[in-house]
Amino acid sequence: MSLLNLSDLTALIHGLPPGSEQAASMAVDRNNNLTKPAGSLGQLEELAIWLSAWQGQHPPRFDRPQIVIFAGNHGVTAKGVSAFPAEVTFQMVANFKAGGAAINQLAKIVGADFTIIELDLDTPTADISEHPAMTEAECISAFNTGWNSVDQSASMLVVGEMGIGNTTIASALAAALFDGQGADWAGPGTGVTGDALARKAAIVDHALKRHQHILSDPVGILQHLGGREIAAMAGAIVAARTHNIPVILDGFIATSAAAVLHKISASALDHCIAGHCSEEPGHIKMLQALGKQPLLSLGLRLGEGSGAALALNILQAAVATHTGMATFAEAGVSTSDE
Amino acid sequence: MSLLNLSDLTALIHGLPPGSEQAASMAVDRNNNLTKPAGSLGQLEELAIWLSAWQGQHPPRFDRPQIVIFAGNHGVTAKGVSAFPAEVTFQMVANFKAGGAAINQLAKIVGADFTIIELDLDTPTADISEHPAMTEAECISAFNTGWNSVDQSASMLVVGEMGIGNTTIASALAAALFDGQGADWAGPGTGVTGDALARKAAIVDHALKRHQHILSDPVGILQHLGGREIAAMAGAIVAARTHNIPVILDGFIATSAAAVLHKISASALDHCIAGHCSEEPGHIKMLQALGKQPLLSLGLRLGEGSGAALALNILQAAVATHTGMATFAEAGVSTSDE
Repeated sequence: MSLLNLSDLTALIHGLPPGSEQAASMAVDRNNNLTKPAGSLGQLEELAIWLSAWQGQHPPRFDRPQIVIFAGNHGVTAKGVSAFPAEVTFQMVANFKAGGAAINQLAKIVGADFTIIELDLDTPTADISEHPAMTEAECISAFNTGWNSVDQSASMLVVGEMGIGNTTIASALAAALFDGQGADWAGPGTGVTGDALARKAAIVDHALKRHQHILSDPVGILQHLGGREIAAMAGAIVAARTHNIPVILDGFIATSAAAVLHKISASALDHCIAGHCSEEPGHIKMLQALGKQPLLSLGLRLGEGSGAALALNILQAAVATHTGMATFAEAGVSTSDE
Repeated sequence: MSLLNLSDLTALIHGLPPGSEQAASMAVDRNNNLTKPAGSLGQLEELAIWLSAWQGQHPPRFDRPQIVIFAGNHGVTAKGVSAFPAEVTFQMVANFKAGGAAINQLAKIVGADFTIIELDLDTPTADISEHPAMTEAECISAFNTGWNSVDQSASMLVVGEMGIGNTTIASALAAALFDGQGADWAGPGTGVTGDALARKAAIVDHALKRHQHILSDPVGILQHLGGREIAAMAGAIVAARTHNIPVILDGFIATSAAAVLHKISASALDHCIAGHCSEEPGHIKMLQALGKQPLLSLGLRLGEGSGAALALNILQAAVATHTGMATFAEAGVSTSDE
């Protein structure tokens, strides 16, 4: 699939398929007969049903979850918005490839396929406080790269990111999509505080003013205030929907990519759950705006898909209990009605 | 080890060893050098340090976690406190042995050793609303069975339970240990509501009145208002401390066993974390009384060690990231100070 121009994105998203009511209904039936008091596995039960609906099959499956990390560089780092220098994006990509990052360990324990995709790291996007982040062609290219990165046989998908400066980008996207000022959405990111945090918020305000003519258009917001890894995550999330692959959203930055899609159509994220709530303060506000309850809340604020990868363990448990438990009849266990 | 009489329990608990400050300090040092912004793995970082302290070694290990489920029967079921008949305890034990219960699936995905221990199921404890639940000899025997069930080579321990009627027992223990009436602590358990729930609360009040002479003595509370699986879980938790095995607490019932130890000495549970918060309403109140923040809150209320077993996935991730990630120096990644 290739998106040829950005104006096609809205129609594409409005045409996304629904989940399977039949598969969900089969999951509900089985769940009602498993050897446990009704509802006693809480969200594990709901997740098994939700996975069936969006995988379009019953029983739900956990084999071959996929984690894709997109790395991008940002011209706005010239404004001193991050605690780390921009070359850390390259260095961390090397660390991902060598297996030394947090996400590598988290992928391994759930047996997930892991891919790292570098998006023109030598050519940072333009500084959003002065120019559109990307040309339309650059934005389409990144979106299509994200789309094409999704393994059609994956059972579920985590999209993550690495990009020094991209909490500033996500803050600008959130402010543009959900209103508010820089100070409402900018947070410490990798560790900026005090005056540096105030400068980061001011840079977001500059960017919002510079691009005020596109603030009512989610696609324009993506191109003007986003970044390549943001567009790529959006592409991967949409591709997953067309391939019956449920998506686990990660933190503040990954969720900002999803938020662009939500703003185009509120049902665009029905195949997505929030894997966790990040410690980055804007994340919980964004999740509330999306109507998503996070599965985990463990104080993570790393990105790299790490919180969503951790949530894969919970989805694995949901599938394992739903598929592996005996029914009352199989086990000869009395029900509460007898 | 054998506890010879219940009066020795208090001295045993006051003599429990502390965690290793040296191992914790080594974990802090390594954590500070891993390739991530400081603190960005949130509770995963704290868990790796905590595990090092209580395993008494660095690096912390996850291999060979152990899950032990204790099953007991309760005379108080004659008062109609449960939505399920008492024979379900036997039936579920058979289900555990056949691998068909939720806990079997949850144990498998983290590679945990799983043991089910039946505690004189043919001889229910006495009805606590009329008699002491156990004789001193019965209580000691169950405590020692719990103690001896712990594998000294386990990396960490989950204790769980199965016993129709035991949310009534846990409610009585909670009310006795932390004050309040039956209605403050009794909840739906496997699914009692309305008048049946009011009767359950009244049974707890009868039991509190019947045993009011022992309500200032935690050991007496265990014997008079507890059950064999409660005493066994207490024994296993204490044994784990002496073997350098951190413990993950499960839900309302397992936590009520831990609460007896806490009441003897507030430091008795320093080697324990709360794996999850149960949907059973008394659990969050009990965790607050113990000063424990649950790792997960996913609406489970099954028992069987299920919530704590789910939390093992988070501990696995904590160990995997702490031990597997590269340091800044190893990966050649710039730090925020450079």
